[in-house]
Amino acid sequence: MLSLAATPGAFSGSSAGMIVLFTDFGLAGPYTGQIKAVLAREAPDVPVIDLFADAPSRQPKPAAYLLAAYALGFPLSTVFLCVVDPGVGGARAPVVIEADGRFFVGPENGLFELVRRRASAVRIVEITWRPPQLSASFHGRDLFAPVAAMLARGAPPPGETRPPEFGRKPDWPDDLAEIVYIDHYGNAMTGLRAATLSPAAILSIAGQRIARARTFSGVGEGEALWYENSNGLAEIAVNLGRADAALGLKLGTAVSIES
Amino acid sequence: MLSLAATPGAFSGSSAGMIVLFTDFGLAGPYTGQIKAVLAREAPDVPVIDLFADAPSRQPKPAAYLLAAYALGFPLSTVFLCVVDPGVGGARAPVVIEADGRFFVGPENGLFELVRRRASAVRIVEITWRPPQLSASFHGRDLFAPVAAMLARGAPPPGETRPPEFGRKPDWPDDLAEIVYIDHYGNAMTGLRAATLSPAAILSIAGQRIARARTFSGVGEGEALWYENSNGLAEIAVNLGRADAALGLKLGTAVSIES
Amino acid sequence: MLSLAATPGAFSGSSAGMIVLFTDFGLAGPYTGQIKAVLAREAPDVPVIDLFADAPSRQPKPAAYLLAAYALGFPLSTVFLCVVDPGVGGARAPVVIEADGRFFVGPENGLFELVRRRASAVRIVEITWRPPQLSASFHGRDLFAPVAAMLARGAPPPGETRPPEFGRKPDWPDDLAEIVYIDHYGNAMTGLRAATLSPAAILSIAGQRIARARTFSGVGEGEALWYENSNGLAEIAVNLGRADAALGLKLGTAVSIES
Repeated sequence: MLSLAATPGAFSGSSAGMIVLFTDFGLAGPYTGQIKAVLAREAPDVPVIDLFADAPSRQPKPAAYLLAAYALGFPLSTVFLCVVDPGVGGARAPVVIEADGRFFVGPENGLFELVRRRASAVRIVEITWRPPQLSASFHGRDLFAPVAAMLARGAPPPGETRPPEFGRKPDWPDDLAEIVYIDHYGNAMTGLRAATLSPAAILSIAGQRIARARTFSGVGEGEALWYENSNGLAEIAVNLGRADAALGLKLGTAVSIES
Repeated sequence: MLSLAATPGAFSGSSAGMIVLFTDFGLAGPYTGQIKAVLAREAPDVPVIDLFADAPSRQPKPAAYLLAAYALGFPLSTVFLCVVDPGVGGARAPVVIEADGRFFVGPENGLFELVRRRASAVRIVEITWRPPQLSASFHGRDLFAPVAAMLARGAPPPGETRPPEFGRKPDWPDDLAEIVYIDHYGNAMTGLRAATLSPAAILSIAGQRIARARTFSGVGEGEALWYENSNGLAEIAVNLGRADAALGLKLGTAVSIES
Repeated sequence: MLSLAATPGAFSGSSAGMIVLFTDFGLAGPYTGQIKAVLAREAPDVPVIDLFADAPSRQPKPAAYLLAAYALGFPLSTVFLCVVDPGVGGARAPVVIEADGRFFVGPENGLFELVRRRASAVRIVEITWRPPQLSASFHGRDLFAPVAAMLARGAPPPGETRPPEFGRKPDWPDDLAEIVYIDHYGNAMTGLRAATLSPAAILSIAGQRIARARTFSGVGEGEALWYENSNGLAEIAVNLGRADAALGLKLGTAVSIES
């Protein structure tokens, strides 16, 4: 488990609370706004932060590695409202995960697997509360947002505690050797924590071998590097260029480690 | 008219107020931010919600059907700041519409036609107030945002009441049989309220015939369906795929109903 | 220098403060959200406005002309958190600029050159404060955001005043004769202040000669025009069309002035 104190960018203490959105909804379009309208009504004094609105679309597995890396930077008591939910309206359970003092609300489809695995104190609650009206296709607005607001107000998770193995994905690896996110600059994040890699490790991807550098300016213009990003993931970039285009990377591209 | 109580996702009561943005400005770029800066100064304690920043660009007609469907989910006394305004700087009147307890501010170019038509109590006020400085091209910031802030603070609309037929579009249909929005997932919303369609209705679009299902998982992977979306519109999707790409749909594609 | 009073859209007085984001981070993805999480903790009652999240990527020079034009519309005491920082982790100094009562926080790489040049009262402070943990690649979150929060709370810039020539770019022009931003509608902003141009000036760009009009509707559908945009820049548009596609314009396209 990464220690909070050792994480660059980690906040220093516990907090009065914040709701953080981690979804594949996009920021434009109505979905994020409709969720914020619910939160503005139900938890009016709680700041709402857009962390990812472009988590891997409909893919809980890569999203789970991204979420686990980025959640650590937030203060204790933060409530994460997480929706990457291709099975909405189907059988997956709605849950609240409490992990080392932070709360996660969303569908139990693996999205919280790495948060659960890396935390030392974890509780899982299946949400049994239902709103007066529940649409078939938008549980983010109708179910998860009201529950996130309850938690942010200090209420307990509205459901039943389940055993620790509930919904686990034991076959998923501890770190995911593929691209889990490509950012606005074309930088490609892997699902590998840099702290698990040797400083001399070479990442091999799409036919290219890439060495580590500390900053972009540590390599020449147009050259590729990998580095520990500001949330602890191994990330592939091209100095003053776009790694996705230059190296042919996309979500899901496999990476292997030579060290 | 759709009843508020029957609308999935509708809020349960009246409210202390909220300003909702419905524009074709995009979220990136300066326009939405400049409007929010005005609102932060003029109505500092009122939450501002981004509903659509990507309403049909410069097309008030499809935008009108989208707005009417999505406005119903918001509490009474909500102020909608609506800008889809290809004629900015030209002759269209700036207006405030009060419709069943909600307020709409923006250009009178048909954008409010369906809100007006579906409400039981409607008033239209032409805004005669002008700011000290009014740019030719950005009435959203200079005129509509200050007026939205006034309304959110409880002030009356700053203008003159006009007769009910002012600016009406009597030739527009009650429901629009075309695609009015394509979302982040590639799902295609029609301007048809699902409640007006038979459960057995087949939607015919771009050479394909599509049947109704309740949820995505009600059809096989890669198959098309239509369903009542979380705001009451008939929406076309492909399970675990993108309907826009798979079916060749875009904004304005015509749909016909077989039932 | 443009006078504040003469700027369309300028606010009318001093203010209790606001933090304005001007970055090339994009709104989606984690960066803007992580910065807002820091601000929510460190300056909880200060409104945060997204002005540009899509400033010219990694290009401080065109970004500097855009920033100078858009900053004038904000009230005195506004704090601008500005990150267009291709040299992050390298040698450029982190600074606070105080310019005619507004504050700018970010990297000294030319991004503030035009703000400094056009202000009558300017002070530059090199930030010597460092956070307990500073990542190599995300000074926006770790260094600039905490400093912006300090300033918004009324604290002095945490560093050392430098001489007025510190970091200046004396060879940059007063106005930049190229495209510095293309907006959501395809309109192309130049780095030229319209007030410096003759009303009869013709802008020549990409082989086309374009005359001035006051509003879009001043020319026929599909015809090009230039006009003074709502923040004082000369902007090229096509009535009911996209200037970028129709005229072949992109960031950096050169423009020349015939008058």
